[in-house]
Amino acid sequence: MATAGEVITSKAAVAWEAGKPLSIEEVEVAPPQAMEVRLKILYTALCHTDVYFWEAKCKDCPHCLSEESNLCDFLRINTDRGAMIADGWPRFTARGGQPVYHFLGTSTFSEYTVVHVGCVAKIDPAAPLDKNRGFGATVNVAKPPKGCTVAIFGLGAVGLAAMEGARISGASRIIGVDLNQAKFELAKKFGCTDFANPKDYDKPVQQVIIEMTNGGVDRSVECTGNAAAMIYAFECVHDGWGVAVLVGVAGKEAVFKTHPTNFLNERTLKGTFFGNYKPRTDLPGVVEMYMNKELELEKFITHSVPFSEINTAFDLMLSGESLRCIIRMED
Amino acid sequence: MATAGEVITSKAAVAWEAGKPLSIEEVEVAPPQAMEVRLKILYTALCHTDVYFWEAKCKDCPHCLSEESNLCDFLRINTDRGAMIADGWPRFTARGGQPVYHFLGTSTFSEYTVVHVGCVAKIDPAAPLDKNRGFGATVNVAKPPKGCTVAIFGLGAVGLAAMEGARISGASRIIGVDLNQAKFELAKKFGCTDFANPKDYDKPVQQVIIEMTNGGVDRSVECTGNAAAMIYAFECVHDGWGVAVLVGVAGKEAVFKTHPTNFLNERTLKGTFFGNYKPRTDLPGVVEMYMNKELELEKFITHSVPFSEINTAFDLMLSGESLRCIIRMED
Repeated sequence: MATAGEVITSKAAVAWEAGKPLSIEEVEVAPPQAMEVRLKILYTALCHTDVYFWEAKCKDCPHCLSEESNLCDFLRINTDRGAMIADGWPRFTARGGQPVYHFLGTSTFSEYTVVHVGCVAKIDPAAPLDKNRGFGATVNVAKPPKGCTVAIFGLGAVGLAAMEGARISGASRIIGVDLNQAKFELAKKFGCTDFANPKDYDKPVQQVIIEMTNGGVDRSVECTGNAAAMIYAFECVHDGWGVAVLVGVAGKEAVFKTHPTNFLNERTLKGTFFGNYKPRTDLPGVVEMYMNKELELEKFITHSVPFSEINTAFDLMLSGESLRCIIRMED
Repeated sequence: MATAGEVITSKAAVAWEAGKPLSIEEVEVAPPQAMEVRLKILYTALCHTDVYFWEAKCKDCPHCLSEESNLCDFLRINTDRGAMIADGWPRFTARGGQPVYHFLGTSTFSEYTVVHVGCVAKIDPAAPLDKNRGFGATVNVAKPPKGCTVAIFGLGAVGLAAMEGARISGASRIIGVDLNQAKFELAKKFGCTDFANPKDYDKPVQQVIIEMTNGGVDRSVECTGNAAAMIYAFECVHDGWGVAVLVGVAGKEAVFKTHPTNFLNERTLKGTFFGNYKPRTDLPGVVEMYMNKELELEKFITHSVPFSEINTAFDLMLSGESLRCIIRMED
């Protein structure tokens, strides 16, 4: 509390240029304003959304074209959160006096950060802090009724988390779909009962799944961000009741298309952002599931690096080697 | 009961050729088999689905291309119902001995018909029989929570029925969308509070609706079958919770397309066939709503013709003059 109301310094990994390694440097962190908290970060991790923005694929948006803004409006959440809501300014300042903008409302690649209270959840203090992240869009997304069949498209960390949700929900059959055969072995640990590699068939994979399940799966979850996979995921659900959920973030040029009859036959397609979690109210329950050993998070953590090696975490994700790489801030 | 187990004769309007006037002639109606009922029809009506099949737009489907089948598989319901499930044969036979196939499981353009018990509902005998049809996809489709905003695309009979559902559900604002300005006056009777004619704007109508409602409507229902309107209907719902429902039957070449981010921002798109009604269990409740004067069906009935003039009912529908034209079998 000695620093309450004061500007403090913090080591932070700053992205000054798209696609270039993050630069670890000292920044100033302003005190929190109304409805804000300044936090100490102990552990963080990467997900593909970090890489997505770091690669700056959304160059065409009006914000990205404007010299006055770095608030890309392609993904809405970023528009609101590059600066704090209270005064429209970021709380970070680089050594040279330039403002350093927040990212996705949290900015956890810093020893200290300031976030809106809406972005913080108080969890069971007994929970091991190095395993609380990387869970994102899962149990709320799939929501499969007990005993049903589920297809998961994309067996990266998000897909396996969706699969973990299906397993916990009591799905009787979980079909993992991926172009990389190597992912299938790992997926078994997450409850995968069947595999389908679109490359193995000379017909569309949705048709393969419909035949495997005698009419389609009850639920599907798309976790690749690839528009073709979204179409497969939607078209492989059973008519009359099937629900497909999109989780993967698509590129700017992506188009989802299907014949409208696929909807008329009583299929539902919905999307989710951050797994529909309301962080403050919902995340503590997720932690509880982990503490009760229902949810197995250990399986997701394949690597761990000190903060100084944060760029290694990017490399591991880009190469597809890691599921979740924990970044230890205090090492 | 004197005719139980016997073949009877019946006047029926038979479609021998796509797009040609129906021919009213005497057919033989076989006795019902297991799980079937033979019924006397008193009143019937047309909807656009009748016209759709009568015009035979689905010539490319394997069934339509095959000489052995008239069971178009473009709209699934027809595949199962051109013949009876019990033995795979129709119950109608023309004078020359040719089989006459059933249509959409009911075949009501005949004095007598045979249907599967699953297609019959027993309703309040006090209900006036000339007002029980033409309700299809409505209250179950829109399902708007009380006080919410709803957009209805297409102000024909189905669209107005969806609007009636929104009105009964207590929607606070109902936006009617149609290219024909003349439809707007009638729509007011069905609870329409705002109108939007896409022709009146030089920007996409979904954007107009988003601006009118400060972010989008809570629910939308698409009742035209036009793929562009489906896209408008989906893209005009509010992110975070908006639900769009497709009711209109699209042509074979139609494609629904949108940017996947519209889903990721937590919008839902679903379709319905026959308004999700389970006829036996759900229709009596609809009749009850009518009997309790909650549901106002009279507004839908704009014309009435005797059976001998059934082709006039087709003309009225094709010209857009009628909402529902009742066909009186006994005149």
